[in-house]
Amino acid sequence: MSRVPAGLWQNLIAVQVYGANTGVGKTVFSTLLGAHFVKRAGRTRWSLHYIKPVSTGPAGEADDRYVRKYTGLSVSTLFKFRDPVSPHVAARSADHIPSDDHLNQRLYAKLKNDARAYSMARGHMGVAIIETAGGVLSPGPSGTPQADIFRPMRLPVVLVGDHRLGGIASTISAAESLIIRGYDIDAVICFDDGGKYENSQYLQGHFDKMGILAFELPWIPDLVGLSEIEEKEAMRGYYDTWSRQGRMFKVARRIIDRHIERLASMNNLARRTKKSIWHPFTQHKSIEKADDILVFDSAYGDYFQTKHTGRSMNSVDHVGEVPLLYPAFDGSASWWTQGLGHGNPQLSLAAAYAAGRYGHVMFAGATHEPAITLAERLLVGLENPRLTKCFYSDDGSTAAEVGIKMALRAACKRYDWDGSKEDIGILGLKGSYHGDTIGAMDASEPCVYNKKVDWYRGRGHWFDFPTVKMRKGKWLIESPAGMEEEFGPAQYFGSLDEVFDFEKRGRSPRYEKYIESLLDKIVKEQRRKFGALVMEPIILGAGGMIFVDPLFQRSLVQVVRNYPFASPASPTSTALEEDPHTWTGVPVLFDEVFTGLYRLGRFSSASFLQVHPDISIHAKLLTGGLLPLSVTLASESIFQAFWGDEKADALLHGHSYTAHPIGCHVANKSLDAMRELGGGYAWRGYQRNWAVADANGSSEWEEKLTMRAPAQDSIWSMWSKKYVTELSHHPRVDHVFAIGSVLVVSLTDKSGSGYTSNAAIGLRDALLNDVSNTRVSVHSRVLGNVIYLMASMTSKPGHLVAVEDALLQKLNAKVVDGD
Amino acid sequence: MSRVPAGLWQNLIAVQVYGANTGVGKTVFSTLLGAHFVKRAGRTRWSLHYIKPVSTGPAGEADDRYVRKYTGLSVSTLFKFRDPVSPHVAARSADHIPSDDHLNQRLYAKLKNDARAYSMARGHMGVAIIETAGGVLSPGPSGTPQADIFRPMRLPVVLVGDHRLGGIASTISAAESLIIRGYDIDAVICFDDGGKYENSQYLQGHFDKMGILAFELPWIPDLVGLSEIEEKEAMRGYYDTWSRQGRMFKVARRIIDRHIERLASMNNLARRTKKSIWHPFTQHKSIEKADDILVFDSAYGDYFQTKHTGRSMNSVDHVGEVPLLYPAFDGSASWWTQGLGHGNPQLSLAAAYAAGRYGHVMFAGATHEPAITLAERLLVGLENPRLTKCFYSDDGSTAAEVGIKMALRAACKRYDWDGSKEDIGILGLKGSYHGDTIGAMDASEPCVYNKKVDWYRGRGHWFDFPTVKMRKGKWLIESPAGMEEEFGPAQYFGSLDEVFDFEKRGRSPRYEKYIESLLDKIVKEQRRKFGALVMEPIILGAGGMIFVDPLFQRSLVQVVRNYPFASPASPTSTALEEDPHTWTGVPVLFDEVFTGLYRLGRFSSASFLQVHPDISIHAKLLTGGLLPLSVTLASESIFQAFWGDEKADALLHGHSYTAHPIGCHVANKSLDAMRELGGGYAWRGYQRNWAVADANGSSEWEEKLTMRAPAQDSIWSMWSKKYVTELSHHPRVDHVFAIGSVLVVSLTDKSGSGYTSNAAIGLRDALLNDVSNTRVSVHSRVLGNVIYLMASMTSKPGHLVAVEDALLQKLNAKVVDGD
Repeated sequence: MSRVPAGLWQNLIAVQVYGANTGVGKTVFSTLLGAHFVKRAGRTRWSLHYIKPVSTGPAGEADDRYVRKYTGLSVSTLFKFRDPVSPHVAARSADHIPSDDHLNQRLYAKLKNDARAYSMARGHMGVAIIETAGGVLSPGPSGTPQADIFRPMRLPVVLVGDHRLGGIASTISAAESLIIRGYDIDAVICFDDGGKYENSQYLQGHFDKMGILAFELPWIPDLVGLSEIEEKEAMRGYYDTWSRQGRMFKVARRIIDRHIERLASMNNLARRTKKSIWHPFTQHKSIEKADDILVFDSAYGDYFQTKHTGRSMNSVDHVGEVPLLYPAFDGSASWWTQGLGHGNPQLSLAAAYAAGRYGHVMFAGATHEPAITLAERLLVGLENPRLTKCFYSDDGSTAAEVGIKMALRAACKRYDWDGSKEDIGILGLKGSYHGDTIGAMDASEPCVYNKKVDWYRGRGHWFDFPTVKMRKGKWLIESPAGMEEEFGPAQYFGSLDEVFDFEKRGRSPRYEKYIESLLDKIVKEQRRKFGALVMEPIILGAGGMIFVDPLFQRSLVQVVRNYPFASPASPTSTALEEDPHTWTGVPVLFDEVFTGLYRLGRFSSASFLQVHPDISIHAKLLTGGLLPLSVTLASESIFQAFWGDEKADALLHGHSYTAHPIGCHVANKSLDAMRELGGGYAWRGYQRNWAVADANGSSEWEEKLTMRAPAQDSIWSMWSKKYVTELSHHPRVDHVFAIGSVLVVSLTDKSGSGYTSNAAIGLRDALLNDVSNTRVSVHSRVLGNVIYLMASMTSKPGHLVAVEDALLQKLNAKVVDGD
Repeated sequence: MSRVPAGLWQNLIAVQVYGANTGVGKTVFSTLLGAHFVKRAGRTRWSLHYIKPVSTGPAGEADDRYVRKYTGLSVSTLFKFRDPVSPHVAARSADHIPSDDHLNQRLYAKLKNDARAYSMARGHMGVAIIETAGGVLSPGPSGTPQADIFRPMRLPVVLVGDHRLGGIASTISAAESLIIRGYDIDAVICFDDGGKYENSQYLQGHFDKMGILAFELPWIPDLVGLSEIEEKEAMRGYYDTWSRQGRMFKVARRIIDRHIERLASMNNLARRTKKSIWHPFTQHKSIEKADDILVFDSAYGDYFQTKHTGRSMNSVDHVGEVPLLYPAFDGSASWWTQGLGHGNPQLSLAAAYAAGRYGHVMFAGATHEPAITLAERLLVGLENPRLTKCFYSDDGSTAAEVGIKMALRAACKRYDWDGSKEDIGILGLKGSYHGDTIGAMDASEPCVYNKKVDWYRGRGHWFDFPTVKMRKGKWLIESPAGMEEEFGPAQYFGSLDEVFDFEKRGRSPRYEKYIESLLDKIVKEQRRKFGALVMEPIILGAGGMIFVDPLFQRSLVQVVRNYPFASPASPTSTALEEDPHTWTGVPVLFDEVFTGLYRLGRFSSASFLQVHPDISIHAKLLTGGLLPLSVTLASESIFQAFWGDEKADALLHGHSYTAHPIGCHVANKSLDAMRELGGGYAWRGYQRNWAVADANGSSEWEEKLTMRAPAQDSIWSMWSKKYVTELSHHPRVDHVFAIGSVLVVSLTDKSGSGYTSNAAIGLRDALLNDVSNTRVSVHSRVLGNVIYLMASMTSKPGHLVAVEDALLQKLNAKVVDGD
């Protein structure tokens, strides 16, 4: 995966020439285009550069020589292989096979040089013609299809169509392969075949409907039987005549126009956004300046392709032209959703397949294969014998509402409560958060998110709890201020594994006693009614990235499941015998929207607690980070609470796009891919890094990738142990932790902590905008005094190390708080 | 668009052979496959049929003759053209150009005959090899790309790869074009090129990762310079040798296995679904039998491809084998979402483009082109000068919650109410419904949907209102029972246009007085506080498809906007001068989730009322029926209520996938397509049909397609005026109405009306399962005693007429209520 900027400059048009097939005239077109610009009159002076990234075949027949011969253009070939075969075959016999990244870096360096040179003179504009090899998906030297290799730069494309019989099909298919990879096709070219197959007429009509201009160009002279001199003469005449001709003007005009449109679009987006967009979770007064809005041209792998703002431009040490776009590491994994990289071609194809096979289809009383397969996969993957049923909805918040409706009905039905008249609350943890719809909000304690929501009514009781953190190199469990008496003094642990070693830690009479006495107070004394325990396992996300002592969560479940919330208290022994997985006490709901599906390195975050909830909700990573879909999984005893003769007894919930096939199919493909990552070597290096006894760990990832996996249940993170430990000693840091793909840094903040703290904002802005001393720009989100970073499941160690370095560098710099 | 069943039979394997390009060996492979099955030993007897749907070129060189020559197979060519060019060019000089539908019907008839014949003998199995022409997307006779023409039958595909230089790229691209159209590729074949380009090795690796098996077959002998006899000898040897060879066994095995898998999958889906799926809005006790669950193999255009159940099988008058799947008209437009047809290749490609370009990207404080373009398009399209801002969320319910939060905050802020302590309600209509999350539920009056939801607390007051209906050929506006005194006696109208002619109808002092006095009672006497008027314009959907008198809705808005809900009552004159679009009284929220975006034939349903709401919410049709996305649009004065120094003052709402690029980009493409339909000739026939003075209308659609459009503001429907009128006279019908794509039939029900009525269920089941006397099976949904039908925006008149006929036929039949 490359970290090159997208290829957009003010005064350099870099256009990539792809062919619908080999032998369709890519080089002839490139030559014609070059010759046209050489001769083009007007106020703009055009500088040309022809670049062939990969060339195969003998030097004498190379495309670069050909182009130079007829145009005098400056030409470059980045990698040459002698065999006249596909680059992936040719490269094998070479000394060195360039990686995809290497190829991109070399190409980018060339273009950057051009842009710099052209920027020196006013009224001067550059055109770089990058001619690819073979067809759109022909493998590059590494074996990766070409259109995938060059995707990070996302250069605009001219597609040279196939004029031969069958060429209509191959040209449209080639265009579709480019489109599903997120490329913009500026123009399709088709050489005239003398009217035999009428390909270009058809293609013009077809592409016109797609908003893509297609042009017919005159076919090259027949060279059969000509001598070398005659051939040169004929072709020189061809290029001379046609490069000045109206049709080529139109093609060039189109390329120039699209460049201008792209520049205008990038320049206008922030202004347009300010005018018409109401941002989520955003105080608009704080983004009054246009520079405050981040503009994304596209995204690739772990990176956004982001527009430079005044702020980021100032921080770049440059001479001459810099690109208008730069890659920024997506450090919040796009609000915790991202799993398999932006612009992932497999997921893109999966989305299109389901769209093509179904579109969306009705799900009430009906079914389709992707939905049932996903349900089964989740039910199996969670390894929770209680769960048997899967209910689909659209996001974490709706899934939470569904889960709460399920739990409350089950409790009210068993205990014969009337929820429509009595107040039935839920039990939870302070600082928990389950979504933004009113019902999900009501399940959270009053906090900054909901306090100004007029219909919010906190319905429940939320417990205090001790938290896990690393401070100055030591893992510890600490009580909240003033609760030392209840939870005891800070406990220290040698590793995260020890924190989760429940065999060794045993049960906690202290925790259980605390919970029981509180329940006695609210249930027995105050006679309040409760219908569910609702919790995010391990980490409370939106509440401030708080790592809960897992033993406390275990204790809570244990106590609640045995507590008499009503009388008769629990299911009869017959009921328990009939269904040993029936809920007891109140139904236990785990909100794994953030923590589940590999975010913390495991399929389920409940597995860390070794607890089986009665209801489990999942979203975010479910589709690998592509589009909204959520599920609420439930046990049979919950499901049975809605069984009855009346339709009104049913769970009358269901959004229009319930179990939409695109979401389900993409989720299946994502879970496949993530399981493969988990089962393969991809995370071994990370796992080893955390498994070694040495508390300092090591950041030498690459060597360890092939080593054996550590014990299944060890806790690990993608962020290096050594780095995390180092951070925990930093004077600006109160504490840190890392688990799975998540790194959390809590800053010391003299002005008080919490959501309203500004301590982390300066750091966040510096990470994004000031790249003067770092290798990478990082987009991150903060929660009060907490800054967190999140990797995707496919993040590579080298990239994460650069992000770690950037964070440390900014922490060390003098940053004005609240800038 | 075709209405053929999908091609799946118990004992006929119909496989479609596509080529990655022309000249790659499709016919050689088809011959080899045929020869293999001819010689295949085992317990099964194989009957073979080679079908060439379209053939071009001289008869002597035709593929069917070639295949017969070497295999003795029964062969058929459906359409022959003499010119050796693409079918779309060749067909032009023919007498008759077969339509796509004609092609499908002919092909389907052949396959059906085969299936019937083979089903006669036990242990007998048929294979039909359908060889396409040229490449995957080569145009058929009509000009439509082949893979699009044959999509309704969705036959499994063997893709013959290209063995030549460049063939890797063209083979993968061809496969991608098939996949984005929802095809399943059973196998990819590549002929050996003697190891020169290693295409088949590469392709095997590539497709293996996608779960598609790729096979290498030996290349055909070099025939250059051979005499006809020598050539025949050489090829006979080739087919003789290789058809018995292990590699062909593997290919055939794969095809057979995939057929068995497909059968098993179709047979198991209902059982698997029963085990693991919790359906939306479904009383599971009512779908206890496996046959109760509808299984969709796929969908195309307006049709589901549905598995025959015992019930539907019984009703089919057949001899021998019937297909396992049949097309059922999607009469609820998949819960009101469907707009541009299932499996629409343009939307599929649009989804993939956005996935490829962005994946999902963070939207808080950031922006991307599809989101801002969609926001602008909606703000312009609604032609509501009040609306300036667009907030994204995931479904109608979340959009409603967002709208309610906006309105309440604006009201509370201006009137200095404390919503966290005081009860602030909303005003609405009885029977309205805005979604299934608790907040959206709270905005509806108590009803069957919410009465058992434990956290539901209806917060508001809901008005009675008169309704519009056609009864016995007459349009009338009728009061609810017992409200005649308030609303007056029934009023009759000559047409729907008259109902909406507000100039003629004027203001209604009666309505206004009723509303004012009720407001006086609840606001002045009972001192209740209200923060919004929330309404579905024109039709209350989930509440039972109730057509509200538009003048009543206008009156309600008018009165509410002038009513003093607090003192000081309204914005100061300075505020109104500064912003003439500021809200007054309480903010007015229109829920257009069901009624908007062309569902009723117009971009906005507010336009029917000629009223500009302060907040407008949209979902469902927004993405053309592909995937979840919703918006809440608001005015500047609403937006300003969240402006402040504190983050807590902001609208702290935002789902992870807010403004996901796939949804936004697909929505842009959908709105483009729908606007084009509206502006073009597509709906002219429908519009004319309703515009003609003759109350009986006409169903002769086709002739009128090119006629001039009727007046812009006329009311029209896709369901014919004559038919609707006829229905309104039916003895089993209480009343009907049709507007835009919606047809609503309210049945007489002696046992009482409403959601719990069973009157329409028998009708619904008959429409789906009993196709003995109708041309089409129809999947519909009922709401109590109401059955409704909905077309997509692309439905063709001929198809709707068949649906109309089916409904009438079932109404006439003796159907047992509540069967």
